[in-house]
Amino acid sequence: MAELDPTHTYDALVIGAGSGGLTLAIGLAGFDRDVVLVEGGDVGGDCTNVGCVPSKALLHAARVGEPDGLAWTRAKRDHLRDHETDEMAEHERITLVAGWARLTDRRDPHVVLVTTPAGDELEIRAEHVVVCAGSAPVRFDIDGLAAERLVTNEELFELDRVPEHLLIVGGGPISLEMATAFGDLGTTVTIVEREERLLANEDPLVSDTVAAALRARGVDVRTGTTLERLEADGSTAVLADGSRIDGVDLVLLAAGRRPKLDRLDLDTAGVAHGRRGITIDDWGRTNVPGIWAVGDVTGETLTTHGANAMGRRTVRAIALPKLPTLGGLRAMPQAVYSRPEVASVGLSTAEVERRHLAGRRRYTADLTELDRGYTDDLDHGLVVVDVERFTGRVLRAAIVGPAAAEWIGIFTMAIDHGIGLRKMFGTIHPYPSHAQAVGRIVDDFTRDTLPALPAEWWGMARGRVFDRIRRS
Amino acid sequence: MAELDPTHTYDALVIGAGSGGLTLAIGLAGFDRDVVLVEGGDVGGDCTNVGCVPSKALLHAARVGEPDGLAWTRAKRDHLRDHETDEMAEHERITLVAGWARLTDRRDPHVVLVTTPAGDELEIRAEHVVVCAGSAPVRFDIDGLAAERLVTNEELFELDRVPEHLLIVGGGPISLEMATAFGDLGTTVTIVEREERLLANEDPLVSDTVAAALRARGVDVRTGTTLERLEADGSTAVLADGSRIDGVDLVLLAAGRRPKLDRLDLDTAGVAHGRRGITIDDWGRTNVPGIWAVGDVTGETLTTHGANAMGRRTVRAIALPKLPTLGGLRAMPQAVYSRPEVASVGLSTAEVERRHLAGRRRYTADLTELDRGYTDDLDHGLVVVDVERFTGRVLRAAIVGPAAAEWIGIFTMAIDHGIGLRKMFGTIHPYPSHAQAVGRIVDDFTRDTLPALPAEWWGMARGRVFDRIRRS
Repeated sequence: MAELDPTHTYDALVIGAGSGGLTLAIGLAGFDRDVVLVEGGDVGGDCTNVGCVPSKALLHAARVGEPDGLAWTRAKRDHLRDHETDEMAEHERITLVAGWARLTDRRDPHVVLVTTPAGDELEIRAEHVVVCAGSAPVRFDIDGLAAERLVTNEELFELDRVPEHLLIVGGGPISLEMATAFGDLGTTVTIVEREERLLANEDPLVSDTVAAALRARGVDVRTGTTLERLEADGSTAVLADGSRIDGVDLVLLAAGRRPKLDRLDLDTAGVAHGRRGITIDDWGRTNVPGIWAVGDVTGETLTTHGANAMGRRTVRAIALPKLPTLGGLRAMPQAVYSRPEVASVGLSTAEVERRHLAGRRRYTADLTELDRGYTDDLDHGLVVVDVERFTGRVLRAAIVGPAAAEWIGIFTMAIDHGIGLRKMFGTIHPYPSHAQAVGRIVDDFTRDTLPALPAEWWGMARGRVFDRIRRS
Repeated sequence: MAELDPTHTYDALVIGAGSGGLTLAIGLAGFDRDVVLVEGGDVGGDCTNVGCVPSKALLHAARVGEPDGLAWTRAKRDHLRDHETDEMAEHERITLVAGWARLTDRRDPHVVLVTTPAGDELEIRAEHVVVCAGSAPVRFDIDGLAAERLVTNEELFELDRVPEHLLIVGGGPISLEMATAFGDLGTTVTIVEREERLLANEDPLVSDTVAAALRARGVDVRTGTTLERLEADGSTAVLADGSRIDGVDLVLLAAGRRPKLDRLDLDTAGVAHGRRGITIDDWGRTNVPGIWAVGDVTGETLTTHGANAMGRRTVRAIALPKLPTLGGLRAMPQAVYSRPEVASVGLSTAEVERRHLAGRRRYTADLTELDRGYTDDLDHGLVVVDVERFTGRVLRAAIVGPAAAEWIGIFTMAIDHGIGLRKMFGTIHPYPSHAQAVGRIVDDFTRDTLPALPAEWWGMARGRVFDRIRRS
């Protein structure tokens, strides 16, 4: 544990101890750099405290029926946070400072001003400043709804009881995961999403499959509309389409996230930024030499694995500037741990549309038509893959179904290593796994590109899997 | 639907309508070949009737608490069997013949003799004969145990009630899956395995992890001993080590499988075979031109995906003998759908030991130490990867843990496409997935091969994952 020395010029100062900041602090300390880590909230950031960790713990607790899922989740979360806090506080190369940091115009060496919880002002100097300030949920008031009945993910896990009817504003990852968890806990769940579909960044086929699966499990999914106000003492929600939903006792705002730029004084320091976040190059450099940014605050990721990957890249750029590159940033997967689970990797759906309009082919497989879908009574499941027409190069792949976040790695490998569907022909997946859908998609691609082979060969090639058996 | 024409020389005759035989029949029919498919039992073979399909259905039913899991399983199985039977019976290029086939010494064109259930003898001629006779469980009597209380997988799914105490002889895939399913159904389960460990074909670390997990869930695992006899009216099992197990009401023999060679008259036809099965080349050819063998009967696989992959290869060799190869047989994964799930791919453990003794390195990751293991309260989970020391070429990989059969495909891709761990550096897996263990293993390998980097960098490189947190 290192005490703060205000006369010292540190090697690095990291603003924010979330997923990105922890990666930076531990990584640079590993290269014998003296690091100041400044955090105004809890060590661990959103991921540990109000994000991935408690949400996954609650999903687990709800699924297996832990007696008090919310309390169990908090205990898991607190234990991890305490561990991470101790680890930072006791690290001999890291000085953990509680407070909110802002940049200045004194650039070389860089000076950062920190306001402590007691109101003191600290001035800390460092060669490199890395902004890992993260993001925060978008907040807005809703007519007729008392503040204590409107929560974001920042308050959700502090509930002392399970709501009877949860209305979720937004249809993204947080919404779907909490719809799943609270559904398992016995809560009636309504999702209101202003876009025409859930998971608007995913393929429409993914959105449709997820919506159908959630509806089949009793979640009331409303898309293409918004929550206008609450009436009747706040228990009846009125939507923009005029429909009314009675009995609502809690509203979860999960309507997107914004980078936390407000307190940073970016303009004073001359750091370029836009609405999405701080502008960086491939290594995390801002326009101001010695000032870097990593993670959600850049708008380039909203995930822990994304912040970690970016953070590793920036650690390398700072600590080993002359080391030959080990390769650029790899394909970035996304995962939603709802039921059904959703994962995707590759270009965005918009990029696929724009860049490959003519030469793109789409292949899909319905997981319910595979033998494992049959034995497990799977109701909804999908793999959709966009490829270049002739090469089979994978542009984007998405999975909706059991363990999607685990086997998306098959496609991540394909993208990272330039393995098109043509080369994947013959790769064997265990029977009866859901991942056999990958083989089916490869067969469909091969059939398209080897049209001389008779169609029925491909029926055989699919093996023991018979189409439409469940409809027979 | 085609009637049998005893004067016709068919393009192919397939003996056995299991996983291999269906692949052959449908595949060759797809190339406009006239196929006779001879089956003495049920269409679908072991997989559909007494293997993968009912076992996976029962695992699902038991896990989700279907009211009558055994009846539910039989209904699923029967529906699939009926569908497959109809599909074969109605196929215009396939003549389905009920009966037991045997080879003859009349080789060109080949004549096969078939004994029908009514006792009639048919003589059928075909250019190509493909033996897909499958395998059967090893059977032996046990002193003091009435025949009706001794079952194999062939009788197990016909039980009219769930046993109170099931003793399973053998510790392989069938044993572990049925221990899991019947455990979920409320049965007390004892496993008696003569080898010193479960899953003797897997890595000992895999065996240890699986045994610990099963024991933690209440399964009584006895290794290095055998079931000698039953006493006390057959309710007390006496093991070779002298220990006694009371209250046993059913014994499941899951002590291995043997190719079904008996009825085939292989020696009459001069087809070479050994104890493991019929000897074949890479394309399924036996030593007798025009006689082929595929699947379990060759001893080269005991899986449906294995029989399917071999079958596809043989269809190609028969129907498209001049087509350039699309590549040899790919890496063959194995999967056990127990809880924990187990999957592996690559060389056998014996081959790894023999061929790479000096240049081999082993990397492991404990899934309970990853963040997802933490949030999901995972008790046991492991990834173990054997690689060539300098290149990182994957020789063998095994996973014990959630959805192992799905994400083993990451390693299957690595093996099929020659992607060593060195090239996998930086590949991003979703947080918090179990598959992040792959990234951890890659980091460990990279640390070994880039020793100039400080150790703590690698702590960072692991991201949000802290070792031994659960012990802290």
